[in-house]
Amino acid sequence: MTNQNEKQQQRTNHLDRIERPEDLAGLSVDELGQLAGEIRALITESVSRTGGHLASNLGVVELTIALHRVFDFRRDRLLWDVGHQCYAHKILTGRKDLPGRLRQEGGVSGFPSPEESETDVFSVGHAGTSIATAIGMALGAAHLRSEEKIVAMVGDASIVNGLSFEALNNLGLVKRQLLIILNDNSMAIDVTQGSMASLLSRVRLSHTYEDVRNTTAMILDHLPLIGRPMEEALENFKKAIRMAISPSRLFESLNIHYFGPVDGHDIGSLIQLFRTLSDLEGPAILHVFTKKGKGFSPADNNPRKFHSTGPFEINGDSVSSASGGRSYTEAFGDALTEAAEKDPKIVAITAAMPDGTGLVKFRERFPDRCYDVGIAESAAVDIAAGLARQGFKPAVCIYSTFLQRSFDQLFQEVSLQNLPVVFCIDRAGVVGDDGPTHHGLWDMGYCRMLPNLVLVSPSNEAEVRGALQYAFGAGRPVAIRYPREKVPVDPKMFRLGSEPFETGRSIVVREGDSEVAVAALGPMVAEAMQAAGRLAEEGIEISVVNVRFAKPIDPALVDLLAQGKTVVTVEDHSRAGGFGEALLAAACAAAGAEPERSRSIGRAVLLAGHDVFIPMGKRSRQLDWMGVSAKRIVETVKKLIPAGAISDRSSKETL
Amino acid sequence: MTNQNEKQQQRTNHLDRIERPEDLAGLSVDELGQLAGEIRALITESVSRTGGHLASNLGVVELTIALHRVFDFRRDRLLWDVGHQCYAHKILTGRKDLPGRLRQEGGVSGFPSPEESETDVFSVGHAGTSIATAIGMALGAAHLRSEEKIVAMVGDASIVNGLSFEALNNLGLVKRQLLIILNDNSMAIDVTQGSMASLLSRVRLSHTYEDVRNTTAMILDHLPLIGRPMEEALENFKKAIRMAISPSRLFESLNIHYFGPVDGHDIGSLIQLFRTLSDLEGPAILHVFTKKGKGFSPADNNPRKFHSTGPFEINGDSVSSASGGRSYTEAFGDALTEAAEKDPKIVAITAAMPDGTGLVKFRERFPDRCYDVGIAESAAVDIAAGLARQGFKPAVCIYSTFLQRSFDQLFQEVSLQNLPVVFCIDRAGVVGDDGPTHHGLWDMGYCRMLPNLVLVSPSNEAEVRGALQYAFGAGRPVAIRYPREKVPVDPKMFRLGSEPFETGRSIVVREGDSEVAVAALGPMVAEAMQAAGRLAEEGIEISVVNVRFAKPIDPALVDLLAQGKTVVTVEDHSRAGGFGEALLAAACAAAGAEPERSRSIGRAVLLAGHDVFIPMGKRSRQLDWMGVSAKRIVETVKKLIPAGAISDRSSKETL
Repeated sequence: MTNQNEKQQQRTNHLDRIERPEDLAGLSVDELGQLAGEIRALITESVSRTGGHLASNLGVVELTIALHRVFDFRRDRLLWDVGHQCYAHKILTGRKDLPGRLRQEGGVSGFPSPEESETDVFSVGHAGTSIATAIGMALGAAHLRSEEKIVAMVGDASIVNGLSFEALNNLGLVKRQLLIILNDNSMAIDVTQGSMASLLSRVRLSHTYEDVRNTTAMILDHLPLIGRPMEEALENFKKAIRMAISPSRLFESLNIHYFGPVDGHDIGSLIQLFRTLSDLEGPAILHVFTKKGKGFSPADNNPRKFHSTGPFEINGDSVSSASGGRSYTEAFGDALTEAAEKDPKIVAITAAMPDGTGLVKFRERFPDRCYDVGIAESAAVDIAAGLARQGFKPAVCIYSTFLQRSFDQLFQEVSLQNLPVVFCIDRAGVVGDDGPTHHGLWDMGYCRMLPNLVLVSPSNEAEVRGALQYAFGAGRPVAIRYPREKVPVDPKMFRLGSEPFETGRSIVVREGDSEVAVAALGPMVAEAMQAAGRLAEEGIEISVVNVRFAKPIDPALVDLLAQGKTVVTVEDHSRAGGFGEALLAAACAAAGAEPERSRSIGRAVLLAGHDVFIPMGKRSRQLDWMGVSAKRIVETVKKLIPAGAISDRSSKETL
Repeated sequence: MTNQNEKQQQRTNHLDRIERPEDLAGLSVDELGQLAGEIRALITESVSRTGGHLASNLGVVELTIALHRVFDFRRDRLLWDVGHQCYAHKILTGRKDLPGRLRQEGGVSGFPSPEESETDVFSVGHAGTSIATAIGMALGAAHLRSEEKIVAMVGDASIVNGLSFEALNNLGLVKRQLLIILNDNSMAIDVTQGSMASLLSRVRLSHTYEDVRNTTAMILDHLPLIGRPMEEALENFKKAIRMAISPSRLFESLNIHYFGPVDGHDIGSLIQLFRTLSDLEGPAILHVFTKKGKGFSPADNNPRKFHSTGPFEINGDSVSSASGGRSYTEAFGDALTEAAEKDPKIVAITAAMPDGTGLVKFRERFPDRCYDVGIAESAAVDIAAGLARQGFKPAVCIYSTFLQRSFDQLFQEVSLQNLPVVFCIDRAGVVGDDGPTHHGLWDMGYCRMLPNLVLVSPSNEAEVRGALQYAFGAGRPVAIRYPREKVPVDPKMFRLGSEPFETGRSIVVREGDSEVAVAALGPMVAEAMQAAGRLAEEGIEISVVNVRFAKPIDPALVDLLAQGKTVVTVEDHSRAGGFGEALLAAACAAAGAEPERSRSIGRAVLLAGHDVFIPMGKRSRQLDWMGVSAKRIVETVKKLIPAGAISDRSSKETL
């Protein structure tokens, strides 16, 4: 498709007439193709304004149109995997107002959201869930003897996840219709890793356009099954499409009916295929080739860059990204590369996120010491454990929310063995626009329970380096968490982490004469220092402690509580399981129920997220909602200090 | 093999001469076969005395002997999966003193344990880890240019776990020797579930003894590769063994070299096969048929019963199990079946543990409403989520330690959607003989962080019923945790849970006039009541609260803290993330830093496990070590109450 064609398509305005999926019935196949162009333009415009996932969404426009043309997803069920490719679906189901609202506070989520539409069945954002949840829904439908059709979408990057495989292995539980669409764009977030990806890639290379056309024709020719026993029709079909390289052998070894590959941009054929395959009375996989970034040349040419992007400008085909400051991720990536220059035992592991976790530079410098295992977080941690057992110092670079997939491996293969694996937990805390599926609000909670493991939070770039240096020398598992945020730039704002990290030792970064001490973790140190500055302007001088270690707890912090200070803990984490609770428990244990030492413990104020899912929005807004921003710290401290006390001090200072 | 033969074999005494694996070199193949009989007898005796895994260990004796005959596992590496089948390995590596010591305090673990022997590489107990950790070790060995051979054992039940698949998909990372032995005994803990199991079962049924002999011969004929290009030899071998039904198509689709199936009881052939395959310069799978329970007729005939067993008597071939009281598991199984009689929306899901989780009766009664997904805990939770989305009330019946595999699914697919899935968490708390890989010490910690989810702990059989009734009516996710323990039998000991469960409401089960109130969870209520009884004998009257809900926290408990009571929390859980910390945080939040209401919060004493791995031993001993047993509660309370106060009261009473 040329750009000329695209521009012509964009001049049509079928989309104006599409308010709901049933309106698609009024369009011819050609018109649906034109509609696809319009939807692409809308998606591109929308992502250019507010950021989001671009290439993957452009790849599934025809697929999505064909699905909604055939199925009625108020009755039928469409389960997305990861869900970042649902924009066309949203546009067709009453959410054409994406531009300016996509991923914005109060706007339209970048992921499926049942709150927005009954056609979004699950709120998802992690990989590998669609087939398993679809099995559950199919079992439920079978009990209910309901005729609804169930469709699970899964990408070539998601299908290698262990959860997908566990589901595929259990597909035999389902004795009714269940259509799995394997959306194979041969390009996951990064180049897809592993044997399955290699198989799919060989299939793609070996299949000519003609092969794909033939496969489509043969599916349509041998099915539907009306008037013919299904097993016989399937057998004939399978005989007809024997090809040299096909995933059919893999899937059919597992007794899974496989059809494909077919062209995921041929709307007319897709509509016929869906109609035909939806009559199958058992689970089946339809393998669909799509092209990531299709129809927008910059994304088409560089789908990795446009997998997930911030706002950008559309100048014809060229693009200029909006730029910003230096992120914790970049600081970490540089620090890890530096550390690895000095220590040949340092290796790095990512689960399909070399870009997102800042590993690109490391991988360029040390290609032999960087492993990408695909979307396989559990295996990533166990491979790290094996490397550590051999004397290496593996850094597992992973988002907080995805490390949740590895909790059991953190426990058994790492902490129980006391192996020196370093977890570099990116996107810890609230993450902004991606919303509740992607926040990293629980990592301290599940890490803190595990013996041997140490939990570190750096608060600026120097501390990122210091934390890594500490971690690689610790000889035990260490988790370092940092946010999706810029590193603070003001070098004077707080001590720069020049002091080396010592296990469990906090740093007092500001001393004040009031009874309030704020103990802040990681990025919250900057918030606390801002708050202290503002409070000082009003005559309130608080102390600020850079906690550094959520585990073990610094006895100095326990002493603060015992000495009668009102301690305010601030963390970008759930209160449950968080640092504040740990400090309280440690203080009680140290006080041993002695009235004197225990009296002020209960005055502690824990600022942290509490038992609600935090909606999408800017990270700064989310910190406000959690009550951990500088502004909210100021409010909290003012409530703790009687008005009289403040004016007293202010007047003293003016004397 | 007849019993006559077994008895003859047992009359040999080669084992006396085997102090270490290299002593195997002195025995002929026939003598090694006799040794296998001796090892079987030792394993059977040992398990009959102290309980343990029997059938699986009897199945791998020849395999283990052959491995140690060929490899030197002080230099080479042997990675077990789950590890419950490592008894023969232990016997051959300096741990012949199993009988009476197996799984006993200070004795020999029932799982691999690096503390016991350098030949145990990882301390494991969960499924699916061996291939992933072996990949890590192989990558490390490649960096080190070390010649060590790496062998990963994996069972047919473990290989279907998502972690195994993630590892298989990443096998291509390894460019050196790595031998995976698929120990296929066609019988996991229960009948193995899923497509992979069905494939293996078809392979087994379709392969005659002659086929298996031929395969062995062909492997040995076409390999080793000395003097021949490896790829060519492999091709010839693969051409030679084309069989109608073979897992080779599955594995080779994924570019994994597959050899087999071969006979896992033919020591001579196994030795030759291992020698040959260990020369391969890449990863390979050797598929081995073994017979679970081989050589001990009761286990041979009923391997499911003898998968994991308590002590039993050996009377010729017959067995009588030692019996005991009624377990929480049985109480739960009956209560679930009762609940399901009344409510057709209740369905149950297990991950390969219908026996262990008490589901056998439920499954017999409602075969269509009970799903066993194999060792696939992540998929189990997502299938439950799908069922719940369809309006069902799924009970996920699972051990606490294995639910760790589902944390991310608990979060995203259940708690974020607020779906009414009921988690029936068996083996919560310390589990006794299985030791640290199997304790359930963290479930409250990871569950408590998740919004919407409610956490319930029943303290007796009536409360098991009450908790289930509550959970199925709650309309939100509920986790019910209970221990591997007998339900209390004394009906007078504490109120019997006749009061229905109300969200977050605790029950005062004993009122005392001292300033100490013990707030106990689930099975700890019985410990607290015992402690209260003993303390009363010494004139100390404490209050005891049956907490029931670890989340949400009962405001009445918060008030207890505010009112000046010294609250002792008791939980069979890690202190980190546990109920005690939650109560402290809730109390601080409610007190709002007011000196009056906050003064006594810090006097709270949190009895719980703390930051160490608790070794194997009897559960009662482990509760002692944790400090949560009746005895330890008594000690704690006495320290809290000044000696004067006690004698005062005692004397008052005698007046």
